[in-house]
Amino acid sequence: MKLGTLDDGSRDGQLVVVNRAGTRLLPASGVAATLQRALDDWQDCAPRLRELAHNLESGAGDGAEALRDGWLAPLPRAYEWVDGSAYLNHLILVRRARGAEPPATLETDPLVYQGGSSVLLGPYAPFPLPDAEWGLDFEAEVSVVLGDVPRGISAQAAEHSVRLLMLANDWSYRNLIPAEIAKGFGFFNSKPSTAFSPFAVTPDELGDAWRGGRLHHRLLCTLNGQRVGAPDAGVGMHFSFHDLIAHIAKTRAFSAGTILGGGTVSNPDESAGVACLAERRARELLAHGAARTPFLRVGDSIRIEMLDAEGQSIFGAIEQEVSAP
Amino acid sequence: MKLGTLDDGSRDGQLVVVNRAGTRLLPASGVAATLQRALDDWQDCAPRLRELAHNLESGAGDGAEALRDGWLAPLPRAYEWVDGSAYLNHLILVRRARGAEPPATLETDPLVYQGGSSVLLGPYAPFPLPDAEWGLDFEAEVSVVLGDVPRGISAQAAEHSVRLLMLANDWSYRNLIPAEIAKGFGFFNSKPSTAFSPFAVTPDELGDAWRGGRLHHRLLCTLNGQRVGAPDAGVGMHFSFHDLIAHIAKTRAFSAGTILGGGTVSNPDESAGVACLAERRARELLAHGAARTPFLRVGDSIRIEMLDAEGQSIFGAIEQEVSAP
Repeated sequence: MKLGTLDDGSRDGQLVVVNRAGTRLLPASGVAATLQRALDDWQDCAPRLRELAHNLESGAGDGAEALRDGWLAPLPRAYEWVDGSAYLNHLILVRRARGAEPPATLETDPLVYQGGSSVLLGPYAPFPLPDAEWGLDFEAEVSVVLGDVPRGISAQAAEHSVRLLMLANDWSYRNLIPAEIAKGFGFFNSKPSTAFSPFAVTPDELGDAWRGGRLHHRLLCTLNGQRVGAPDAGVGMHFSFHDLIAHIAKTRAFSAGTILGGGTVSNPDESAGVACLAERRARELLAHGAARTPFLRVGDSIRIEMLDAEGQSIFGAIEQEVSAP
Repeated sequence: MKLGTLDDGSRDGQLVVVNRAGTRLLPASGVAATLQRALDDWQDCAPRLRELAHNLESGAGDGAEALRDGWLAPLPRAYEWVDGSAYLNHLILVRRARGAEPPATLETDPLVYQGGSSVLLGPYAPFPLPDAEWGLDFEAEVSVVLGDVPRGISAQAAEHSVRLLMLANDWSYRNLIPAEIAKGFGFFNSKPSTAFSPFAVTPDELGDAWRGGRLHHRLLCTLNGQRVGAPDAGVGMHFSFHDLIAHIAKTRAFSAGTILGGGTVSNPDESAGVACLAERRARELLAHGAARTPFLRVGDSIRIEMLDAEGQSIFGAIEQEVSAP
């Protein structure tokens, strides 16, 4: 099933069930007021939400038209947002671009960082840019929403922790990163609020495109109306989501509603294009001695979407414009 | 006023108002079921909670006995937990101990890291230690709970964002830190779940001990019944909480309920002792060529408390025992 959150003026919005086509919706208030509440009591809520989804799909439920407006992030605030960097090609290219080496444990020890999660952006939220010198970049990602995860869970057992999948735009200020990395505590100011797709979908909705903890579809990335990349999210993801869950849970537990990103999708095949500008700039730097693609400026727009085998949008699109602050 | 959260079997517990002495309590369910809900609507809830506190103090409210058992962290899960490192003496000593230099921007650019916040430990929660080789250490800190913070707030305006103060025990696995720092993304596995004091108090409760964004009282740290440190939290805190808020909000907003730590309290005066073992080990290393104090082992116990000028415990004590996993 597909779930979404409509802006009703409250901090967490209103949970709705959406049909496969993303055109009709039913409020889920009879089951759970918010997505977090549904995740808090998933065993009880999920079957009842599925029933609503079934009614909506079969025409038994009335449903309202799903408009483009009003969508918040499925979780407008979350208890954790942890972002991995599982596509090694991305990591190698981006580090090379800032003159840094990939870590020695690149292939054995996953890289993750803890992101901010008290303010998450909706799919159509404009992105105010206070300072173009900060080097704004988008990063298109696949993310999962977890159920309760005990400390020490194995990658195999982690399979059952994935409740939902969403797309993410992990906005980054590239020019703030080197100084933060040099301080040794990782990203902070360099990672402003992340945006998410309108719909979060259960794994079963994805058929066998979701297998082995990887989502095997292309992630379509468009800048100012021009396609800049369509890398396959199932290709080059060295650590699966299950591996990442086992990694983050090595020393602590996580409660339901934690969001975990797989990192900027990146294929070794250059013709797949890019899911962020830093990679393109890195390739330019290596080929021509200098980056030619500028970072984002006020007025630029980003679109991120994933289609299923029938060409249907799975998560709805993230469509954000960079705006004046 | 003092607030606390009692374990009622729910994920967020039950909000209660506590008297000054920490001996009597009144459920706040008529105002807000949980502390997060009170923070979500602080303008409305705070005066009503104050009225309960007044009734309790004056004897007009019945109140129940506040027992030692049943306290969760005031926020058993939070939307963000950001920890600064504002006591430069700590930073310099701990980095020296692992052969690293403090960053060049030490005195001008605050160091903060984003911690995990979906599972926060109560003040008396045992701390299971899966592997003594990870080098378990406590870190005694003062933390603040914020209201909504807009992006770009100034340090001056940030003064009004501080809703509550609490003590924290920022558990750390010291031996996992060097490898994580080397990877460049900051701490993750090296920072297991953090514990908090039973009571969160409003700034006015602290009188002029809370001034300039610093809390001027000694933080009493006890290991296995022996005092290991009593550094003054108002001394050596180079960046105030207001500075830290302005820093974290440089590129994004935060929503109410975000917890911000000031970092391990540390005084340049060695006779004040330590609020973590890493500092003591660093001093031993510098004096004798080797650290003598071992990291924590199963059976060790930690007590962290702060008294006011009258010797009254302000936040209640954090008392945790390291347990078998």
